[in-house]
Amino acid sequence: MSMSKIMLALDEPRPLEEYQGLVAETCGLAKGYKVGLPLLLSIGPRGAEKLRRECGKAVWVADLKLADIEYTMKLTVSLLGSAFDAVIAHAFIGADNALQELTAVLEDRGMLLALVYSMSHPGAAEVYDKCLDYVDRVVEKVRPWGLVAPATRPLIVERAKRKYPWAVVLSPGIGAQGAEPGTGACAGAEYEIVGRAVTAAPNPLEALREIIKKRNRRLSICWRYAEFRRTWWP
Amino acid sequence: MSMSKIMLALDEPRPLEEYQGLVAETCGLAKGYKVGLPLLLSIGPRGAEKLRRECGKAVWVADLKLADIEYTMKLTVSLLGSAFDAVIAHAFIGADNALQELTAVLEDRGMLLALVYSMSHPGAAEVYDKCLDYVDRVVEKVRPWGLVAPATRPLIVERAKRKYPWAVVLSPGIGAQGAEPGTGACAGAEYEIVGRAVTAAPNPLEALREIIKKRNRRLSICWRYAEFRRTWWP
Repeated sequence: MSMSKIMLALDEPRPLEEYQGLVAETCGLAKGYKVGLPLLLSIGPRGAEKLRRECGKAVWVADLKLADIEYTMKLTVSLLGSAFDAVIAHAFIGADNALQELTAVLEDRGMLLALVYSMSHPGAAEVYDKCLDYVDRVVEKVRPWGLVAPATRPLIVERAKRKYPWAVVLSPGIGAQGAEPGTGACAGAEYEIVGRAVTAAPNPLEALREIIKKRNRRLSICWRYAEFRRTWWP
Repeated sequence: MSMSKIMLALDEPRPLEEYQGLVAETCGLAKGYKVGLPLLLSIGPRGAEKLRRECGKAVWVADLKLADIEYTMKLTVSLLGSAFDAVIAHAFIGADNALQELTAVLEDRGMLLALVYSMSHPGAAEVYDKCLDYVDRVVEKVRPWGLVAPATRPLIVERAKRKYPWAVVLSPGIGAQGAEPGTGACAGAEYEIVGRAVTAAPNPLEALREIIKKRNRRLSICWRYAEFRRTWWP
């Protein structure tokens, strides 16, 4: 049951010290941290490096949702220093003169790429989900380390995992956005991303423990069900 | 011929003073400035406010290419202060729980929204251009102030202008990305966006003047042609 991990999303701009405390406290229980654009804009890459020092063993992801041309994305990435293990970009922008070049630059800097496969909010159904066949071609060309697929629509997580078993799937949408802990993991995600449900809780550590408990309960059920299915419809 | 304006793209992280000089020098010739994510990450929103003071009469656009959920985009926008008149976001993320809410927040803060309709690099043909019909529905729902459409593929600028005559079209791709000055304007764009061709030139002011000259030459030809077409195929 240790296969699925929790990644904490840190988005809201707050004093660095507050997040340093939160990271130190949750380090170990959370196996990864995802720093969003608003927080990065306010603490800067140097601040992110300081944050990282509070939990070096976790995976650190810069959630910039990059969606620009090659030239601009390269400039952005060059500012990140040594704060992150991976960077999130949108698959939607295509490989040519964009994600292909970004992959190369990240490789040079010892970072990995995670591509948004679809998003967690209702609006994602308006364009993203309808264009998944085209997005698939981009994913096949770029072959990123990770894929971001929404726990709010677990069928998309399943699709990502079925098509790209080699990719690490990060699944946002747990908690404030409505998905129950474990939904992403049951659909095959390696990381479930939780944000406000922990960071905005009066007692974040307690909230995180509660989420992990719920996740484990759901996982034990869905795994038993998968086992049952395997046994009876082999 | 004053209908089409030049907007300077400032992307590369450099000392603030350097850009302050560039803006003061080009103010008036350039009718707008677009600040990219890499520069904003390095000078911060406070730095952008200082830049703006060098040319208050121009239109200032934050080119963040926002493509996230409502919650995160709101947080990002709340950091911008009074540096910008407009913010660029991606149309492909959809209206529901995303661009609709972003529009409202921007309105509260006295800012305008410009949506990316398609992008200027070759990779945009892989997904973006193929999904334009869905993107159209988002544009119709959100009715943004501006649309970003690539001068490198003028047919897309024409399409944007034909479908949304009320929108201000910003057209990137002039110069380093290969489109000739005037291509976007001839297709109907209100602003042509030029970046490296000016900012990386040994003499930026001279380079900008040269681009405006070239733009005017091309515009006078395409307008005469349009006149001719109107007269003979009424």
